[in-house]
Amino acid sequence: MTRLTIRRPDDFHLHLRILLMLQNVLRHTADHFARALIMPNPMPPIVTSEDVTRYQSEILAERGQTVAFEPLMTFFILPNHDPRQIGLLKGVGVLSGKGYPKGLTTNSDDGIEDYFALYEVYAEMEKHGLVLCLHGEKPGKEVYCLDREKEFLPIVRQINQDFPKLRIVVEHVSTAAAIETVLELPDAVAATITAHHPALTTDDIIGGKLKPHLFCKPVAKRPEDREAIVRAMISGSPKFFFGSDSAPHPRGAKECAEGCAGLYTAPVALAVLSEMFEKYDALDRLENFVSRFGAEFYSLPLNEGTITLEKKPWKVPTSYFDQPNDVVPFRAGEELQWQVVS
Amino acid sequence: MTRLTIRRPDDFHLHLRILLMLQNVLRHTADHFARALIMPNPMPPIVTSEDVTRYQSEILAERGQTVAFEPLMTFFILPNHDPRQIGLLKGVGVLSGKGYPKGLTTNSDDGIEDYFALYEVYAEMEKHGLVLCLHGEKPGKEVYCLDREKEFLPIVRQINQDFPKLRIVVEHVSTAAAIETVLELPDAVAATITAHHPALTTDDIIGGKLKPHLFCKPVAKRPEDREAIVRAMISGSPKFFFGSDSAPHPRGAKECAEGCAGLYTAPVALAVLSEMFEKYDALDRLENFVSRFGAEFYSLPLNEGTITLEKKPWKVPTSYFDQPNDVVPFRAGEELQWQVVS
Repeated sequence: MTRLTIRRPDDFHLHLRILLMLQNVLRHTADHFARALIMPNPMPPIVTSEDVTRYQSEILAERGQTVAFEPLMTFFILPNHDPRQIGLLKGVGVLSGKGYPKGLTTNSDDGIEDYFALYEVYAEMEKHGLVLCLHGEKPGKEVYCLDREKEFLPIVRQINQDFPKLRIVVEHVSTAAAIETVLELPDAVAATITAHHPALTTDDIIGGKLKPHLFCKPVAKRPEDREAIVRAMISGSPKFFFGSDSAPHPRGAKECAEGCAGLYTAPVALAVLSEMFEKYDALDRLENFVSRFGAEFYSLPLNEGTITLEKKPWKVPTSYFDQPNDVVPFRAGEELQWQVVS
Repeated sequence: MTRLTIRRPDDFHLHLRILLMLQNVLRHTADHFARALIMPNPMPPIVTSEDVTRYQSEILAERGQTVAFEPLMTFFILPNHDPRQIGLLKGVGVLSGKGYPKGLTTNSDDGIEDYFALYEVYAEMEKHGLVLCLHGEKPGKEVYCLDREKEFLPIVRQINQDFPKLRIVVEHVSTAAAIETVLELPDAVAATITAHHPALTTDDIIGGKLKPHLFCKPVAKRPEDREAIVRAMISGSPKFFFGSDSAPHPRGAKECAEGCAGLYTAPVALAVLSEMFEKYDALDRLENFVSRFGAEFYSLPLNEGTITLEKKPWKVPTSYFDQPNDVVPFRAGEELQWQVVS
């Protein structure tokens, strides 16, 4: 197969940032995706219904009238979140709330330490049909970085047991353990898979030279974890759908003494996924992964229209945007085999 | 205890580099250490007796006449090393040969893939009383980076079994598994411990922001590995002695898209070690670790003279040397409690 037309896809995990970065990156997603779930961790975080409305307006203003791209909104769950806010958030159209583990990733200083202190919030979210999106890593200095996802899984189990109707997404899974847990748990629990975790292991980041542009949270794990992610991605199970976690950082925030976590994948994600699905002889399952399972989990209508992918090599730019805010994308400077042609 | 006078110490694993970097870094080691084993991986590597003599002369010229510092020389073992060279190398005074795993660390492209193809070299080294220094990580893309040291240990066992009189040093140990193996094997097998592996885990490098200045090979491992290294260091076992692996890189070679491995510890190593030995209530064992066990293993006379360490806080510079060749040391900008006062 050298040409593939699929329903317009969704990205259920996207960082758009604000101001100049928002202006720069928005079109890369809007060019390829009909909708994206916009992560609520700019600084300051998107917490209240007013925050959500304002941020959504900023994105729509930037998008303009002629582009058919819909930002799906989520809110940042504070450790002391007022459960009475949930109804208001639902009222302005948020689909989900995002729980960040305190201090573990970009702009997560206001994140959660004790997930069981938020039961009133979960109860309200369950009542209002909001999805709980979890960056699934256990916070706390005593947890070894490569164990954090595995050690977070009992928290997912417990919340699912106590709120069986609350839909939970374990975001950007990076371990075989997380895949197994998501498969074991009821249908209310699903996971997003990025375009880069099926492609990377820890070796790519620290195994040779240090590669800050391949550094993300959760950090890519062992080869057998990567393989389990690939298997889940191409399995056809509706529990696994695409969320890029595309996270742009200016080059200077990566190539420095304290580098930020995150890969900028928006402009290459569909090409990278097409390559991988082809490699594993599963191109016929790509559409469900990027255009159906996520929408169904979030109870959204499927997108109208299509995009066409073609096997036609192109070279990924070594960076996007003007210095000093240029961003080095995933697979920078490399040749990719597939591209979006319409 | 706030003041400690010990025999002048040795550093049994040091990168001095060449040219400007050599000029810059030499005094930091010479100020504190009587001798150091100089790693043979400048580019091109130090392979022949002529290479050794030339490199030693460069170091001595840089040192000058008035400084009492002795560079101990080692040679780079090529994958196809001519065993007839070993006698010549012994003739110019090398103490050891260093085996690098191909491609795994700085300037190791000429390193070894098959350690068992070098038995004639080991036989000559054993005959001439040279020490085999091994960067103990198994080469090969199929070995996960954090498993490489553990998977290298059977190679050490086998070489020790086949050459029982060949002294082997497993360099810069980073795992509990390596510590256990070294303890189990006969006295011909020892290990060096750096000043940073007893202080770091993977969390320090990739657990929060990405920290290129804490990135080295072997990469620091799990908390229980770090604890095993500390226990070995303060155990009083003569199988464990100090080798800093101090490895200066200009800032730009660390804060970039493909960062070099190595920590620059020479100016802080004794201060950092004193803090750790004090913390573990073992200051009385510091002297054996830095000034006796290594010399004894290498059959060298103990150094004459002493240095004095004092508990007197000082702030480590944020970097050393002039831009753009400035080097960020371990513990840059932090306050250390101990210092060398004379």
